Amino acid sequence: MAPSQSALLWLILGASGVALVVAVLISRGVLARDRGTAAMQRISNAIQEGAEAYLARQYKTIGLLAVVVAALIYVGYAFAHRAESADSVGGLSAGTYALYTTVAFLLGAICSGIAGFMGMWVSIRTNIRTAAAATTSLNAALQTALRGGAVSGLFTVAMSIIGVAGLFGILQLLAPAGVDPAAWAQRIPFLIVGFGFGASFVALFAQLGGGIYTKAADVGADLVGKVEAGIPEDDPRNPAVIADLVGDNVGDCAGRGADLFESTAAENIGAMVLGVLLYRFFGLGGVLFPLVVGAVGLLASIVGVMIVRTSGDEDPMSALNRGFYATSALVAVGFFGLSKWLLQTPDAPDAWWHYFLCGMIGLATAFAFVYITQYYTEYRYRPVKSIAEASQTGAATNIIAGIAVGMESTVLPVITVAVAIISSYYLGRTSGLLDPTTGQPVGGLFGTAVATMGMLGTAGYILAMDVFGPITDNAGGIVEMSEQPDSIREKTDRLDAVGNTTKALTKGYAIGSAALAAFLLFSAYLDEVRTLTGNELSVNLAKPQIFVAGLLGAMLVFWFSSLAMSAVRKAAQSVIEEVRRQFREKPGIMQGTDQPDYGRCVDIVTIGALKAMVFPGALVVVFPIAVGLVFKQFGLGAEAVAAFLMIGTIAGILMAGFLNNGGGAWDNAKKYIETGMYGGKRSDAHKAAVVGDTVGDPFKDTAGPSLHVFVKLLSTITLVLAPLFI
Amino acid sequence: MAPSQSALLWLILGASGVALVVAVLISRGVLARDRGTAAMQRISNAIQEGAEAYLARQYKTIGLLAVVVAALIYVGYAFAHRAESADSVGGLSAGTYALYTTVAFLLGAICSGIAGFMGMWVSIRTNIRTAAAATTSLNAALQTALRGGAVSGLFTVAMSIIGVAGLFGILQLLAPAGVDPAAWAQRIPFLIVGFGFGASFVALFAQLGGGIYTKAADVGADLVGKVEAGIPEDDPRNPAVIADLVGDNVGDCAGRGADLFESTAAENIGAMVLGVLLYRFFGLGGVLFPLVVGAVGLLASIVGVMIVRTSGDEDPMSALNRGFYATSALVAVGFFGLSKWLLQTPDAPDAWWHYFLCGMIGLATAFAFVYITQYYTEYRYRPVKSIAEASQTGAATNIIAGIAVGMESTVLPVITVAVAIISSYYLGRTSGLLDPTTGQPVGGLFGTAVATMGMLGTAGYILAMDVFGPITDNAGGIVEMSEQPDSIREKTDRLDAVGNTTKALTKGYAIGSAALAAFLLFSAYLDEVRTLTGNELSVNLAKPQIFVAGLLGAMLVFWFSSLAMSAVRKAAQSVIEEVRRQFREKPGIMQGTDQPDYGRCVDIVTIGALKAMVFPGALVVVFPIAVGLVFKQFGLGAEAVAAFLMIGTIAGILMAGFLNNGGGAWDNAKKYIETGMYGGKRSDAHKAAVVGDTVGDPFKDTAGPSLHVFVKLLSTITLVLAPLFI
Repeated sequence: MAPSQSALLWLILGASGVALVVAVLISRGVLARDRGTAAMQRISNAIQEGAEAYLARQYKTIGLLAVVVAALIYVGYAFAHRAESADSVGGLSAGTYALYTTVAFLLGAICSGIAGFMGMWVSIRTNIRTAAAATTSLNAALQTALRGGAVSGLFTVAMSIIGVAGLFGILQLLAPAGVDPAAWAQRIPFLIVGFGFGASFVALFAQLGGGIYTKAADVGADLVGKVEAGIPEDDPRNPAVIADLVGDNVGDCAGRGADLFESTAAENIGAMVLGVLLYRFFGLGGVLFPLVVGAVGLLASIVGVMIVRTSGDEDPMSALNRGFYATSALVAVGFFGLSKWLLQTPDAPDAWWHYFLCGMIGLATAFAFVYITQYYTEYRYRPVKSIAEASQTGAATNIIAGIAVGMESTVLPVITVAVAIISSYYLGRTSGLLDPTTGQPVGGLFGTAVATMGMLGTAGYILAMDVFGPITDNAGGIVEMSEQPDSIREKTDRLDAVGNTTKALTKGYAIGSAALAAFLLFSAYLDEVRTLTGNELSVNLAKPQIFVAGLLGAMLVFWFSSLAMSAVRKAAQSVIEEVRRQFREKPGIMQGTDQPDYGRCVDIVTIGALKAMVFPGALVVVFPIAVGLVFKQFGLGAEAVAAFLMIGTIAGILMAGFLNNGGGAWDNAKKYIETGMYGGKRSDAHKAAVVGDTVGDPFKDTAGPSLHVFVKLLSTITLVLAPLFI
Repeated sequence: MAPSQSALLWLILGASGVALVVAVLISRGVLARDRGTAAMQRISNAIQEGAEAYLARQYKTIGLLAVVVAALIYVGYAFAHRAESADSVGGLSAGTYALYTTVAFLLGAICSGIAGFMGMWVSIRTNIRTAAAATTSLNAALQTALRGGAVSGLFTVAMSIIGVAGLFGILQLLAPAGVDPAAWAQRIPFLIVGFGFGASFVALFAQLGGGIYTKAADVGADLVGKVEAGIPEDDPRNPAVIADLVGDNVGDCAGRGADLFESTAAENIGAMVLGVLLYRFFGLGGVLFPLVVGAVGLLASIVGVMIVRTSGDEDPMSALNRGFYATSALVAVGFFGLSKWLLQTPDAPDAWWHYFLCGMIGLATAFAFVYITQYYTEYRYRPVKSIAEASQTGAATNIIAGIAVGMESTVLPVITVAVAIISSYYLGRTSGLLDPTTGQPVGGLFGTAVATMGMLGTAGYILAMDVFGPITDNAGGIVEMSEQPDSIREKTDRLDAVGNTTKALTKGYAIGSAALAAFLLFSAYLDEVRTLTGNELSVNLAKPQIFVAGLLGAMLVFWFSSLAMSAVRKAAQSVIEEVRRQFREKPGIMQGTDQPDYGRCVDIVTIGALKAMVFPGALVVVFPIAVGLVFKQFGLGAEAVAAFLMIGTIAGILMAGFLNNGGGAWDNAKKYIETGMYGGKRSDAHKAAVVGDTVGDPFKDTAGPSLHVFVKLLSTITLVLAPLFI
């Protein structure tokens, strides 16, 4: 039985609302926990202060940029549509169309900002409670950290779904008089693409700024503290140590939160656009399917988070994996039910289970990415071992080995994505849905869309695991700086090691979902161009202009990565100079008789990161628009932009995989040597491995994750600005 | 007046023959020079022996692989065409078609091998004569080295032109009875694409094997000599020093010779295929135009080489630049005359000067690449300075800075190529050549082809400058090892520094020409598919299969680069172990009382390089075929291969630019510090810079240059195997 549209919307909003309420309850539970000793609190407060000050300034900068872009969108839209009849844009005047898109953009930007801020708000309060819990038991610390992460995970995904579903509902109510409600409902997804763009826009700057911040502080603190002054990591005598701990929050929590917020938003909107194509078969059930799946995934994630507990003897990673398996199993069951409920049509009795299988392909892809990432970044396996071995002959061979591992690590993910796209496409194509006029199969692209939904179904849980990383990292820092006994440090160390793994996994997952979602978003773009022009758009690389546009897209990936890494190096340089200055002017710091000025370092990184993020971020926004407008002069604007987008995405996915996995592998090669291999800590091999680890920092925490957002921003920007290029 | 076909062929063969004769005369002149002291000769003989032994074994391996591929081509062709009518392949039976292609492949392979061998043969004999000449004057040494390089440059380019022109002439004579001679002449370029594939095939393995050899020896010798034992570069006590000097010859001379041989061959054949499309306007003059331009470029290069002389006070680079300017000016004049002579048609009176301008765009592109490469790799400019500055805070920041510079260095070349492709395309399109049936402009692609010819017109001179590099490098090594006075060392050092620059320039030039030629070869591929199927092929990225094929193409670039770098690391590792063993077992080596066993090191690198080159080389050959055959199952073989090729090319060009320039910049950042900056030699900054330099070695001399060939091999392999994918 076909469900009514308002029932579906209430279901989506209800389930997401439940997730929000649960997030609030979990956060109250976490906040009620013990805040540890006064020494711990002093450190935690300093982190909190620095992180909140940074985020406030960052959002002010991004807010200003967003207002400028919003104004340009409004003007551009009103201009692009000025000559068209009202009818061609779904019964709307150009001004109204422009207004809706602009408002959706701003709403996406605001929601993304809130999601990032909330996640960080909770995690900077959870770190100290995790540190305090570690004084009682490993299980208590594990649960505290994961639940703190879960607040971020649930909040982010729920906000994204509520935003899209809410916009959908509101636009339903604003249906212009005299327009057929069904036709209007099919038009809405195109009007809310602005929401995805707004989300991507904020996510790009948040991830880039946060990524620069975290690694500038980390690299700066390490080089001047560990290497020059010879003091251990997180030593309170290092003036940059608070900036380093702040960085974990603003980069990993706020940045990745914004990243997955926009992933979910962009993917849902893209899938809805494709769902419209099958309206005649599934009605609104097909259009809203992605949101329903997302909402059910949220409920599954809650269960997953709540069942995690560990005995203390086992590897905490196993406990987290159990939660992931439970979430995945529930998503699979939910997928089965929802496919049967919403994707059954008398026209094609096999369609629902074909799409169910597509969803399972997506779920399997998530698993594959998790395992491949582990293979390339954990020291149990060949790749990381080869880097550790190469460290024996010095830093140069360590670097060569790490770069080779990073590049090799792109092979299996690409094959996985290739198989996922093609198999889900064929399952969709053979689902039995035929165009009644041409008799052609039409369900292929929706198959890839459903696979993306399957992959993102576990997003809530994955994000909880991800934020677990910086929380335990911070907890470890607090324990170290407040000079707790070794037995407690040992517990936070174990959790910190698990946190490194979960952070690496999330990046693999994020890039995998970006790859799947990218194809989905291309298709949505092509569909939008078809809707606007009435013609099928082919993206023909055989034309010189289109080839050149693709070349430029791939080039932008290299340029952007270069800028992101240079930014880290420059900001780190200023941290190093500041720390050297403090050591020189206050010799008491090293003897422990004088207090370092943590605040100065925080300020310096804050200013450095914010200044450095503007140009690369703006480049990613301006470049595709410039390409579109220049090639429009040759009458090939929309096609050139498509090639730019697609080839830029391909290069971006590969580069991100290279950077993320290379960086993770270097990190763990160092850890492997620290277990006593090749001479252990303080050996020459270890010194070489530290160089690799430092090089990997901006790879895996700045350029790599920023490229995920870059890839999706390209899609959403072209989706929103398509009318300008035609 | 339209020239007769045989007149044109004789002109091409005559001019190329002159170049060959001049090459022989120059080599006799060089060989007649003084061979220096007995100590010098001992070292030179050791280099010669090692290089010739390596090349003999390398060509044996490649020869075996080539025979296997030839057999597969024969079978594949006979099989692919078995069902077709003889008429569809130009009046040939399937067996004859297969035979011609296979013979062309083998001929290309053999010529490529001879060109590589000859170039190296001369340069390993020139190095000692350059060393001896340095005892008299800088000018004598400069001229000796450049003329030795010129033998390689002239020989390589002449062989390539003679091979293509000769095959053309022979196939003219073999015209099947009853086939219209004009139709047959238009068919020939398709029959000789096998020559380009054979050349690329050998070039790939030669460049890859040589590149692995040279950098494994270099990295191994440096790490164990300079870093561990603390002895200077080229110190005779280092057992790996001869292997290092051998490497310069087998990597830079033989490798790059094979690379430019196949560039010229592939580009000429691709341009001829496009010339066929304009047969109705230009007749055979258009088809043979690329070969005529190439032959005239050879004569211009001879003049350029002969006028180079230096006073001793000036920078030797200025003298080399004068030669380059003279060559370019003569090529420009020749281009004007040839365009006017061969590309005048009453149908379009403006066509000839449009195409002349296209040629000038190509020439300008060569200049732009030369300057951009200098900007990114010379220490007078910001990029290299930023790396040197970053070395002050250690190896990690040096590496981050170098990677950022390498990635950034792709931006301007891509923009240059973009402008060159689009502007030459539009000049060609507006040349006035119209399809008589449709009235559409048809000269656009030939415009990009002519731009490529303009760029490659100076290939002979550029290759001479390139081989100048390893000759002076070797001469310096001989001077150092035979313990000559400092005043002589100072002269070879100056030439060596210039040689580093010329090597970097050639790589920039090679990748630029690869980018231009790639687009030309795509067009030839699309044209071949059109000829075979009768349908226009569009390469539509909007299809999931085509997108996936493109993704796989880009991935192969990362995989291949990873394999190339790992190979260097592993082979270097075995060198290090061998040197350590010799130092341990013969303590007399370090005291100078015992002779190191150079031959063992040469053997170890030889075996290591040959073993390591097979898998990556085979992968590049097998992967596109596998993609074609798999996607053929979806009915999209030819289109998927095109996307694979194009996006693989885009990724390859960017990656090669990143690797070449990053490596060059690291090298010169170290040299900049050695001039006394940041503490000079033996400072911490210098140690950090040495790490970067070592990392850059496999970047710029193994993976980067191999990617040039990789990119063109993808084109030629798809061009030859197109019938299999349809």
